[in-house]
Amino acid sequence: MTPSNTSEPTAAFLIVGNEILSGRTLDKNLGYLASELTKSGIRLIESRVVPDVESEIISAVKALSGKATYVFTSGGIGPTHDDITAEAVAKAFDTRLIKHPEAVRLLEEHYAGTENELNEARLKMAHVPEGSKLIDNPVSKAPGFNIANVYVMAGVPRIMQAMVQAVLPSLKSGPKVHSMTVSAAVKEGDVAKPLAKLQDEFPGVDIGCYPYHRAGGFGASLVARSTDTALLEKVYDAMVQLVIDMGAEPLNERPEGDNAYA
Amino acid sequence: MTPSNTSEPTAAFLIVGNEILSGRTLDKNLGYLASELTKSGIRLIESRVVPDVESEIISAVKALSGKATYVFTSGGIGPTHDDITAEAVAKAFDTRLIKHPEAVRLLEEHYAGTENELNEARLKMAHVPEGSKLIDNPVSKAPGFNIANVYVMAGVPRIMQAMVQAVLPSLKSGPKVHSMTVSAAVKEGDVAKPLAKLQDEFPGVDIGCYPYHRAGGFGASLVARSTDTALLEKVYDAMVQLVIDMGAEPLNERPEGDNAYA
Repeated sequence: MTPSNTSEPTAAFLIVGNEILSGRTLDKNLGYLASELTKSGIRLIESRVVPDVESEIISAVKALSGKATYVFTSGGIGPTHDDITAEAVAKAFDTRLIKHPEAVRLLEEHYAGTENELNEARLKMAHVPEGSKLIDNPVSKAPGFNIANVYVMAGVPRIMQAMVQAVLPSLKSGPKVHSMTVSAAVKEGDVAKPLAKLQDEFPGVDIGCYPYHRAGGFGASLVARSTDTALLEKVYDAMVQLVIDMGAEPLNERPEGDNAYA
Repeated sequence: MTPSNTSEPTAAFLIVGNEILSGRTLDKNLGYLASELTKSGIRLIESRVVPDVESEIISAVKALSGKATYVFTSGGIGPTHDDITAEAVAKAFDTRLIKHPEAVRLLEEHYAGTENELNEARLKMAHVPEGSKLIDNPVSKAPGFNIANVYVMAGVPRIMQAMVQAVLPSLKSGPKVHSMTVSAAVKEGDVAKPLAKLQDEFPGVDIGCYPYHRAGGFGASLVARSTDTALLEKVYDAMVQLVIDMGAEPLNERPEGDNAYA
């Protein structure tokens, strides 16, 4: 990985939920957030999944909040008893939950137009740690919130995605990391040595190698990432040459099957 | 969450790879491992994703190794320069990499039958921390390894899955956590209060509530989990009654769209 420049913004992601750790629910939020942050020039440096256990949420929030410029969380802010993220985040910052007037107003307005009653359980969603700013939820109104460098969002992917879009414009973005890929029917074991040499020559570019398999073929994708596009072009040209020198044809497009290594 | 019995085996999962954090590659291993562990009665208590940075891998391995009965890792054990997991795990246990004779033999045997040379890069995959046991890789032969309570596996899902199957029979399994689900066209905000009461009545059962949306409908799945099937049946009956009392029809099957909250 490219040595980090401490002035570049970083992020960490904390997923809260027993249902992810039990295998019941497949997380769909990490991939989305990772892509959006990369596009915004914010480097995601760690992601964690913890259960709906207060002490676990508190210690993860503290650890990640001290490590990254921004921390995003998803899950555990609904109306039911197993939604304990807001309470845990308040405790992580030694503060208490308050009923936020604007959140109450948003929920009152929302439920007035429905057959649903703004009962005690739903009002729970208007409670945020003291000093928080609300995060807009255009999908189902119950807001997320931001306290210090932590952005607390819903777990439902559609709502989580809308909240990410609401938050991103307010964050400091860094130089965007660009990537260029050369895929070819080469084997990792053959490409390893020349690729390591290339990495040594260009320490400012982060070079990775990812094998893929698909019906009727296999190969590897050589991926270069850098904020410096001129340097990146040089490495790209060198990767193309490297593949040609091995007697293979460089492919510009990402081959079918080149995803999740599969 | 059900209070943990300290004699029950637990697990943590560490995913290593810049490509997951950049959003290039969608992780497919967490869902698989989570499901297999649940089937085996091993409770997954945390999962983390860290980049290909030695210090990050070392500190995550140490933290998780001290926290869970078993730690699984995936990614970073291939032949290229960006595969640094084995070296980092060796350092986490204050030991060094050695060329494992049986791993060399496996690779020699494998590559003898191919057009590929067992070069220095491929031999890198025979290096494991001193004192490790090998983990069988029936797919592409290059083994994973086990040191102390850490099981180091490949990132390619097909290989990772084969390695999980190779490892599971050797682990101490606990009482299996069973789950029963009642889905219905009810709203979380309405079901919250009676469900919290039910949770209070049955502290030995872990009750969760997950909303879902699908074409033409919405609802919530009430999920009860416990190692005690008699208790679980009681909670299931109570959840069915709870749904009926709300004027909704309890559905036994998992509705379409009830996945990843979506």
